[in-house]
Amino acid sequence: MGRWEPDARGRLERAALDLFVERGFEQATVTEIAQRAGLTQRTFFRHFADKREVLFAGAGQLQEFLVGTVASAPESAAPIDAVAGAIEAAAALLQERRDYAQQRQAIIAVNPELQERELIKLASLASAIAGALRRRGVTDPAASLAAEAGIAVFRIAFERWACQAGQGDFPQLIRESLDELRAVTAGK
Amino acid sequence: MGRWEPDARGRLERAALDLFVERGFEQATVTEIAQRAGLTQRTFFRHFADKREVLFAGAGQLQEFLVGTVASAPESAAPIDAVAGAIEAAAALLQERRDYAQQRQAIIAVNPELQERELIKLASLASAIAGALRRRGVTDPAASLAAEAGIAVFRIAFERWACQAGQGDFPQLIRESLDELRAVTAGK
Repeated sequence: MGRWEPDARGRLERAALDLFVERGFEQATVTEIAQRAGLTQRTFFRHFADKREVLFAGAGQLQEFLVGTVASAPESAAPIDAVAGAIEAAAALLQERRDYAQQRQAIIAVNPELQERELIKLASLASAIAGALRRRGVTDPAASLAAEAGIAVFRIAFERWACQAGQGDFPQLIRESLDELRAVTAGK
Repeated sequence: MGRWEPDARGRLERAALDLFVERGFEQATVTEIAQRAGLTQRTFFRHFADKREVLFAGAGQLQEFLVGTVASAPESAAPIDAVAGAIEAAAALLQERRDYAQQRQAIIAVNPELQERELIKLASLASAIAGALRRRGVTDPAASLAAEAGIAVFRIAFERWACQAGQGDFPQLIRESLDELRAVTAGK
């Protein structure tokens, strides 16, 4: 183990995001990221498998949070309400890191490989949520449909939120998008 | 150009699927596929970029079909009904190739790389459908939500259909899954 580096992970994350924005994801190297953060390449690889993982390191935590929140919804909650509660709570957390989230989104939006990785992340989230619903006794296809609907709402609300330069309220956008999905599926 | 090979494409497709089922997608080689089809490797590469593309060669056609069907829905049709009409019509076509579709699904189900490719294909279909809805004057987020809802319904109905050894009616499963999505989003 190397010496203790205060907040090495956070410094690497910020350096990486800045470099991805300045030079593009493809062009930025791990060496540059470490340098910018005032750390070594070795320290980088203690925290991240590669530069792509800087952008996806939070996926496991998000999944755990969503699954945990679905699991702890009131027993009487309808599947869609359990899912809505979880994605709204996640949105409230992400909102605290708006700058990070918006920067990350801008980087992913211009890179097809990162878009694919993001797609796979969202599909994993949907299947983890469906699993959490099944453990609450929800049968299929309702469990899968509620999870897929939730993730579609999350993704679309996220895009609207991340593209707004300013003040949008992410949990509020989730609620609006879910209402819109209800209206759309009802054929309105 | 080589000599004319009657139904070379179809023969390669069938040989590839059989080999993928028998030996696994990873293990089967292009040489074996061509041999099994009684054709040369060169003929294979005139039809497909690689062995993975045998499984995804129909994606462009499916997309064109869905976009065209959404575009030609009656002007008065609600977005979700335009989408539902398109995926039901696609399901009726796929139903004519049930054996192929079920074999393909079984191959993809056990290979994470193919699952990712399938995910990307479905995301492209959703975004093409959303585009077709926008050209009908549907605004966002309704266009994206209707398209995402349609693809979620398609995917879930497809899985139910492909897993049934026997008689399931795919367009009927689409209608049932859409009803179920309506019930789920309504909080039932």
